[in-house]
Amino acid sequence: MQIEINKPILELNDRLAAANRALLAQNKVFMLDIMASPGAGKTATILATIECLRERYRIAVIEGDVASDVDAQKIKASGITAVQINTGGACHLEAAMIERALEMLPLAELDLIIVENVGNLVCPTEFDLGQTAQAVILSVPEGDDKPQKYPGIFAIADVVLLNKLDALPLFDFSVEQFTSSLEALNPTAALFQVSTRTKAGIADWATWLSNIIDA
Amino acid sequence: MQIEINKPILELNDRLAAANRALLAQNKVFMLDIMASPGAGKTATILATIECLRERYRIAVIEGDVASDVDAQKIKASGITAVQINTGGACHLEAAMIERALEMLPLAELDLIIVENVGNLVCPTEFDLGQTAQAVILSVPEGDDKPQKYPGIFAIADVVLLNKLDALPLFDFSVEQFTSSLEALNPTAALFQVSTRTKAGIADWATWLSNIIDA
Repeated sequence: MQIEINKPILELNDRLAAANRALLAQNKVFMLDIMASPGAGKTATILATIECLRERYRIAVIEGDVASDVDAQKIKASGITAVQINTGGACHLEAAMIERALEMLPLAELDLIIVENVGNLVCPTEFDLGQTAQAVILSVPEGDDKPQKYPGIFAIADVVLLNKLDALPLFDFSVEQFTSSLEALNPTAALFQVSTRTKAGIADWATWLSNIIDA
Repeated sequence: MQIEINKPILELNDRLAAANRALLAQNKVFMLDIMASPGAGKTATILATIECLRERYRIAVIEGDVASDVDAQKIKASGITAVQINTGGACHLEAAMIERALEMLPLAELDLIIVENVGNLVCPTEFDLGQTAQAVILSVPEGDDKPQKYPGIFAIADVVLLNKLDALPLFDFSVEQFTSSLEALNPTAALFQVSTRTKAGIADWATWLSNIIDA
């Protein structure tokens, strides 16, 4: 029943996502959608990525949250334009929300838009936003079994960041187990082991992103 | 649009939840629904709670996951009956899923059922399962701003567990900030600071739970 009811919503979303994608292509803007659990380090990763790439690209951020503008304020404090979307209860961003956010941004003067999706490992999977690429962040404290438990989101990722690597000594997390589960689901996804706290791995990730932006 | 489409689903869910609640009351079974982000420590909390209460109550567990039976296997390894629900993509448990799980459990021989909801701080909020009480777990690595960003789930909790307290030195988490945000949203929620790793606070939480089961 649920699938039938959702079908028209997803079809409408896909149409709007295609329009967003065309608008971005027309303006030569790369849009990266970042998905993760609450607290995996999405905002910290965005801030660290901005530090690496702000000399090279003109960047803006779209922040998705159920409520509050905590994250947009953090981005703005770094001197980067941020548009806050409050979903008002919805558990994921949709293409229509991105359409409105894009209207508020000077697309002709941007190279890169980073979208922070709502903290959720399930729902964002089904809603195309018109992004150029999708990143999933998993943090060490969440556990190495998450690809098994939330396969959908890991299967569609272009790139996966394993964050909070500096917390490894405190948690029972097997990087080997995680890596092999991820590879089984998604053999082509790039994987970076990072820590937004120590900045380990961030430069490698930013170089990879820069390469696909320029490609 | 979404609200109108969802209304019949939620009404049907509420009817089934009321039937679950009546069935549990008839059998004098207390059902605790545990909600949290992926990796906050739901399964570890359930295992620690079982250790404290298994001499006193006859316990079973209902495990909700998008995919896999990793968690149910962990519970069964402790000698406790566990029913695994795979939602097959759905981001929350619904009353109809619990109805089927209850059919598989010997209710007359149980005192306590612990339900582990799908890891998600948004979607489970709207779906009554027929539970007697609802607990939300937040873990320190997720950050102290989560009540501001996911207010709905914290507002409906009967009790909140702040888990992974032993990780406090490694993360920029203010217990005071978290506590005051939570109190603003939900002044009556009980709060326990715990670590499933060190077992700190677990006995206090189990005593509180035991008191409301016996009430």
